Amino acid sequence: MEALKARIRAEGRNLGRGILKVDSFINHQVDPLLMQEAGHALAARFTHLGANKVLTAEISGIAPALMTACALGIPVVFARKAKPITMPETVFRETAPSHTKGRIVELFVSPEFLGPGDCVLLIDDFLASGQTIQALARLAQASGATIVGIGTVIEKTFEGGRDALASLGVPIESLAIIRSMDDGYIDME
Amino acid sequence: MEALKARIRAEGRNLGRGILKVDSFINHQVDPLLMQEAGHALAARFTHLGANKVLTAEISGIAPALMTACALGIPVVFARKAKPITMPETVFRETAPSHTKGRIVELFVSPEFLGPGDCVLLIDDFLASGQTIQALARLAQASGATIVGIGTVIEKTFEGGRDALASLGVPIESLAIIRSMDDGYIDME
Repeated sequence: MEALKARIRAEGRNLGRGILKVDSFINHQVDPLLMQEAGHALAARFTHLGANKVLTAEISGIAPALMTACALGIPVVFARKAKPITMPETVFRETAPSHTKGRIVELFVSPEFLGPGDCVLLIDDFLASGQTIQALARLAQASGATIVGIGTVIEKTFEGGRDALASLGVPIESLAIIRSMDDGYIDME
Repeated sequence: MEALKARIRAEGRNLGRGILKVDSFINHQVDPLLMQEAGHALAARFTHLGANKVLTAEISGIAPALMTACALGIPVVFARKAKPITMPETVFRETAPSHTKGRIVELFVSPEFLGPGDCVLLIDDFLASGQTIQALARLAQASGATIVGIGTVIEKTFEGGRDALASLGVPIESLAIIRSMDDGYIDME
């Protein structure tokens, strides 16, 4: 997706230790038209797989997942990091380490909205180590749902997430691929 | 917005103590097409005010704020509840009590994305006591931005938020208005 790559080139900043600052258009301030285009682009790559639900993790996954779900015309479920009082007693729960928060986060999904018969597309803003997406996959599997694909806006291949997710045996698509962030550069495909 | 009201009538549940469960289409599972329509409806009510930015609070504000910003063609900033490592040292910070979490939450906005010259539309999923939106207003004011309007998807008038926000002197618009949740009912305008 050329508009996304151009934006990363113009505004992305390499903060070191593999951290890419894109919070002017992805995860603090969001450019909704760029995100809508990203949603359409992700939807186009998965439209043949028959997903009936998108699953993501709050917080930064919400914008791309919502736009992808909108383009596909299917609901999106965002796994909550805290269990709100509106959620039933028994829920699906997983944990994942957060790279940008430096701690373990919990993810909760209500069995009201995910279960056997669901064909789930996992969407997130970043594919880095893949650990958040692995936690989403475990949530989907615990519910009995079938995972049909994984899509992210930006993939950092040097963190190995694609390999970590390979055993799921589903297509993995990213709209921009960063090969390396060594030496202060952003080396993008 | 009739589609929204119909959905609240069909799926909304009164959990008592003023808590409205709408997590099948608003804040855990989201219906993106309904949310897109809500975004268009909110945008239409504010289009004449010249907002150049939408400001919301993560988490549940993101979906309606993103769709409103998309309809207006302007960026959306979501105030973060934890300060990520991509944020600069000096930030705008406010606190607000969370009704559904039972604790005080912090809200952070980077001065990179909000400042004098910005005309800000505050968007959230709910207007209840108004305390989250007051915190967003203080963030906007601290940055030197001008607040031009407040829009929410669902307003619970019996919690007094509209009065609490009146001193801001800006238009307040909600797409569905709940007058009372006494006796287990959902009394909607």
